[in-house]
Amino acid sequence: MNAEAINALCAGNPRAVARAISAVERGGAEARAVIAAIFRHTGRAHIIGVTGAPGTGKSTLVNEIAKYYRRRGQRVGIVAVDPTSPFSGGAILGDRLRMQDLAGDSGVFIRSMATRGSLGGLAAATADAVRVLDAAGFAVVLIETVGAGQNEVDIAKNAQTTLVVEAPGLGDDIQAIKAGILEIADVLVVNKADRDEASATVAALEMNLNLKPQTEDAWRPPVLRTVALTGQGIAEVAEEIGKHRAFLETHGLRQARERARIRAELERVVQHELLARLVRGVNGDKIETLVAQVAARELDIYAAAEQLIHVA
Amino acid sequence: MNAEAINALCAGNPRAVARAISAVERGGAEARAVIAAIFRHTGRAHIIGVTGAPGTGKSTLVNEIAKYYRRRGQRVGIVAVDPTSPFSGGAILGDRLRMQDLAGDSGVFIRSMATRGSLGGLAAATADAVRVLDAAGFAVVLIETVGAGQNEVDIAKNAQTTLVVEAPGLGDDIQAIKAGILEIADVLVVNKADRDEASATVAALEMNLNLKPQTEDAWRPPVLRTVALTGQGIAEVAEEIGKHRAFLETHGLRQARERARIRAELERVVQHELLARLVRGVNGDKIETLVAQVAARELDIYAAAEQLIHVA
Repeated sequence: MNAEAINALCAGNPRAVARAISAVERGGAEARAVIAAIFRHTGRAHIIGVTGAPGTGKSTLVNEIAKYYRRRGQRVGIVAVDPTSPFSGGAILGDRLRMQDLAGDSGVFIRSMATRGSLGGLAAATADAVRVLDAAGFAVVLIETVGAGQNEVDIAKNAQTTLVVEAPGLGDDIQAIKAGILEIADVLVVNKADRDEASATVAALEMNLNLKPQTEDAWRPPVLRTVALTGQGIAEVAEEIGKHRAFLETHGLRQARERARIRAELERVVQHELLARLVRGVNGDKIETLVAQVAARELDIYAAAEQLIHVA
Repeated sequence: MNAEAINALCAGNPRAVARAISAVERGGAEARAVIAAIFRHTGRAHIIGVTGAPGTGKSTLVNEIAKYYRRRGQRVGIVAVDPTSPFSGGAILGDRLRMQDLAGDSGVFIRSMATRGSLGGLAAATADAVRVLDAAGFAVVLIETVGAGQNEVDIAKNAQTTLVVEAPGLGDDIQAIKAGILEIADVLVVNKADRDEASATVAALEMNLNLKPQTEDAWRPPVLRTVALTGQGIAEVAEEIGKHRAFLETHGLRQARERARIRAELERVVQHELLARLVRGVNGDKIETLVAQVAARELDIYAAAEQLIHVA
């Protein structure tokens, strides 16, 4: 990135932002160059993760939250992560629908992320895209993730405040209340709260929160009701996000969380780089020989890994 | 593992199986020892992945499929993976409910997996648990995963046949048809097919399949209707699983898939091991210094990773 491109990016030029995000999505040397150029300008945005299963109306909620901040004059970046669409145009369709809603507002930047890449590729690209938006002066960056799983937990680590969205009557499974996802919630939102079963969902979430041992100075996630389609409850969500942000600041947790996030990311980057170096140094035939030996049960997977490391 | 324990495991002794799975869940040297002892006895089971969002009735479906094979005299292992429950007892509750259903049948072994570990830890433990069940002579191993995401895709790679379970009326989101998840489906199951919207769900899935370019000799995933609660449609699911298995064999795909899986797993194990070695060789203070420098924006994450690798 030349100085001109960096200036354009830091001034929030949409084309410069789009180009930089495309570069970090492609990964490798290009991504590194962008991050090296902009990291000094990061650290100002409030990063809000929004996660929830399909069908909870999470995208509509994200749009309404974005509009709320826009009405207050803040520029908003949205990174929609859909790890379930590594192959096809699901993310693009989503983008189009949203564009109609927030169209023509240069204070909003929306980007969908999907990857064909390996485990960790999406998490890395998302973290870097958030950095780009942060450097570009978006005061609020919303990261939207679909569904549940380790990926969501990892992506949530990029956020300072994490919203978990539920909807009434979705899960009649015993897995409906996903303990791991509740653990990462700073604010719980029961969307579609005009449905009959909303009170039951709220009660179930409250019960679950009560199961956790609470220390006096800990943050207890509030359980809020919204109807994103009509905008109902959005102001309360924004208010709780603000309270949570203040809580992090007063308790010195903003920095603690950031350090934990950096530690995890450092681990991921180092791991990726070490493997890349090893693969560069090893004859491809050697890898295929080891794979064939494992397939033939002549070698177990751990012994094969050991051999590969020693060859390199 | 001593020879006695290996013999007990290969004879299908439930206590030996449980112990071996606990060992692979703990990971590290213990896991390696178990795998080194048993890998020669693996490669016989048909491994079936079952994935779908909460609320699709996937667990009931898995139980019914297990019962179907049991009635035909086959021993069945079930590995229920819930990456959304890294912290609490969700998996244990699930186990208890299932135990009531399949209780007292020594031909069925059920294990829930959840992890506090890092990215990849669950995928590794699941792969190893499947190996244990395979070595213990379970002819069919069902891997049940919740939800969507890269984790599910990775875990599905352990399976020879992957079922994707949908339910009518769950997703009114545009993300409801998750392209990435459909990509991994060998058999599509619309459960709760007694609901009104079932035909619409089947039609949407068929339409999505039609969007994919199909070569003549490729496997086209069938879309089946089940009502797992009453057992309706289970025989057809088992029949299609059998057809898919035969298809893999006739087209030499069983081996090709296994090699791809081994290659991916080798990568994961090597990556993990390389990082572990690096961390052992580096002063903890050095890591914290780098984290602080990144937090202070004195260093970008990739530059910090580079330094860490050079120090080691």
